[in-house]
Amino acid sequence: MPTAATTTDRLRRLADAARDAGIDVVLVAPGPDLAYLVGHSVPSHERLTLLAVPVSAPHEAVMILPALERGGWEGSPAEVAGVRFVTWLDGEDPYAVLLSALDAGATAAGAAIGTVAVDDHLPYLHAFRLQQARPELRMRPAGELMSELRMRKQPAEVDELASVGAAIDRVHRRIGEWLRAGRTENEVAADIAAALVEEGHRTADFVIVASGPNGASPHHEAADRVIRAGDPVVVDIGGPNPAGYNSDSTRTYLVAGGEPDPEFARVHELVRTAQRAAVDAVRPGATAESIDRAAREVIEQAGYGEYFITRTGHGIGLEVHEHPYIVAGNTRQLEPGMAFSIEPGIYLPGRFGVRIEDIVVVGDDGARLMNTSPIGLLVV
Amino acid sequence: MPTAATTTDRLRRLADAARDAGIDVVLVAPGPDLAYLVGHSVPSHERLTLLAVPVSAPHEAVMILPALERGGWEGSPAEVAGVRFVTWLDGEDPYAVLLSALDAGATAAGAAIGTVAVDDHLPYLHAFRLQQARPELRMRPAGELMSELRMRKQPAEVDELASVGAAIDRVHRRIGEWLRAGRTENEVAADIAAALVEEGHRTADFVIVASGPNGASPHHEAADRVIRAGDPVVVDIGGPNPAGYNSDSTRTYLVAGGEPDPEFARVHELVRTAQRAAVDAVRPGATAESIDRAAREVIEQAGYGEYFITRTGHGIGLEVHEHPYIVAGNTRQLEPGMAFSIEPGIYLPGRFGVRIEDIVVVGDDGARLMNTSPIGLLVV
Repeated sequence: MPTAATTTDRLRRLADAARDAGIDVVLVAPGPDLAYLVGHSVPSHERLTLLAVPVSAPHEAVMILPALERGGWEGSPAEVAGVRFVTWLDGEDPYAVLLSALDAGATAAGAAIGTVAVDDHLPYLHAFRLQQARPELRMRPAGELMSELRMRKQPAEVDELASVGAAIDRVHRRIGEWLRAGRTENEVAADIAAALVEEGHRTADFVIVASGPNGASPHHEAADRVIRAGDPVVVDIGGPNPAGYNSDSTRTYLVAGGEPDPEFARVHELVRTAQRAAVDAVRPGATAESIDRAAREVIEQAGYGEYFITRTGHGIGLEVHEHPYIVAGNTRQLEPGMAFSIEPGIYLPGRFGVRIEDIVVVGDDGARLMNTSPIGLLVV
Repeated sequence: MPTAATTTDRLRRLADAARDAGIDVVLVAPGPDLAYLVGHSVPSHERLTLLAVPVSAPHEAVMILPALERGGWEGSPAEVAGVRFVTWLDGEDPYAVLLSALDAGATAAGAAIGTVAVDDHLPYLHAFRLQQARPELRMRPAGELMSELRMRKQPAEVDELASVGAAIDRVHRRIGEWLRAGRTENEVAADIAAALVEEGHRTADFVIVASGPNGASPHHEAADRVIRAGDPVVVDIGGPNPAGYNSDSTRTYLVAGGEPDPEFARVHELVRTAQRAAVDAVRPGATAESIDRAAREVIEQAGYGEYFITRTGHGIGLEVHEHPYIVAGNTRQLEPGMAFSIEPGIYLPGRFGVRIEDIVVVGDDGARLMNTSPIGLLVV
């Protein structure tokens, strides 16, 4: 949870970057961007809530919010950092309230509001109504500004990722309690969801249990399929900790007995080798796409290239998917503090899939693994 | 879960309404609108996923989605109903893929795409990029079209609301297992969250445990405050069932012992009376604002009007908050099948709050209650 000093610092860094991009005000919506800046967010319902950060005076940021939400911000880092709260009541026009707060701030600074950067996550309806309320307002996405800020994790953020990584590792280590032949994927997934919360997640955000042929679809979740002896089972799970930082880790297990696909052991070993090759390639200055390439080369050389149908990874933090993306074409150079998944996979349609996924943080010399549960083949 | 026939029917009704509104295509984003139409949604990550419904030919609806998500839709009602799937790969421009699918459909129908209705929930970034890809496209919010469809629940939807209502009632009936002096709000909330899932919710979407003075803030969630003997405690909880329909029910309990605020019992009784007055006022043809008025009059006449700082309720279904809103100024007439909360409250700053909330569905003769746990004062 950021302190008021963190909030002040992050608002200032956002304003510096926005000024260089020709922006007058940044409008931040409930969600990960707001949580990052002020350490607190709210569910984004139909009532407009926005943090307006004037680039010329970030310490005069204004939070527009429904009156009934005001209490939830008492004593928050935002309040301590001096954010001003402007509330509106059911029945009032929140867009007019927002614009008049912006105009007041601009006039006080001897400026005018011309160009605003709008949070990528803001629901379209709100953006439409704001544009309608002032047609001459120039609006553009704030995503790049925000991701530049959020991409390099500060030490306290790395601690959060390590702690939630350890929590998901504890769940994987308990897989034998739940995963066995004769149960449905949904039954296993329900038990895992409960364990995610028991082990320290705020919620079970996603629980993929993909057995047998279902594993060949990378984003299959869980279904009524009864798991059989000899099935490979992809278990890809994660969620946020109380501070909002996410875990995301995949292991592919084999259910004991039956007659496993004769190719499975070889494919599992190959994915494991590819995953470690990518982890080993991580260092400051390496490009994001070079990490993808390191994993892909191993799989292509073994003749399975056409079955590795996803990118190798995605950034992670306050969102499960964020920058940087570990994908061909992303020439961005890695820097210390960047956090992302490394999750190569091989997906054989109609048969099975194998995916192994860890979160890493770029350190001065290489990858620091946030996950340490065994990646070798585990028969349960 | 809608069947293919439900999907076909809902797409047709959406197209009929959109045609009357001068729309050529409706773009539906992951979330409640998509779940309503095709019985299946996906998490809305950064990759563009949209259902495009051409008004002239709703049976030719096209789903634009990332290739790796295609597997999750196999055998879905959308596929059975004939929705066409157009996939794009990481690295491709999904907006170009979307526009060319739209143009192909329009050309086949001898028309052109001029005006699109865009899902209220679509993240701003996607709307911005689509507009950028075709500046002459006229875009407007689809929210009203969708809410007109979703507002009147069909019998199968009422069954879902009744079933998830019974699940949240079971949690409230177990409150004595967790709520007692000496525990923090957060500890109690964690236990309740686990019970929500045990009793049949897919996730614990919100768990408000607001003790003593924290109860005076309607949207306080839960904090480190230690609950004391004699505290009133507002417990407002809910979440989606596996089909996506939400529960939302509030009870205000009193912790045994200590010295309760001398006004508490009277205020609790007053809120209870107001809540039942509003429930009794529900019938087809009554306006939404008349239900608000029925509750507010009871509280105003007792001299507490200024402490009833919220609207009386909100619609509920695939979203926790949706139309119709039970609020002054909403002259919409109630119709059979409309579902909403009735949740008057009294909030005394620095002291405590009381809120009592049930979900009702409008029946032919009056309200059908989805919640039946006792609303009388329970001392735990």
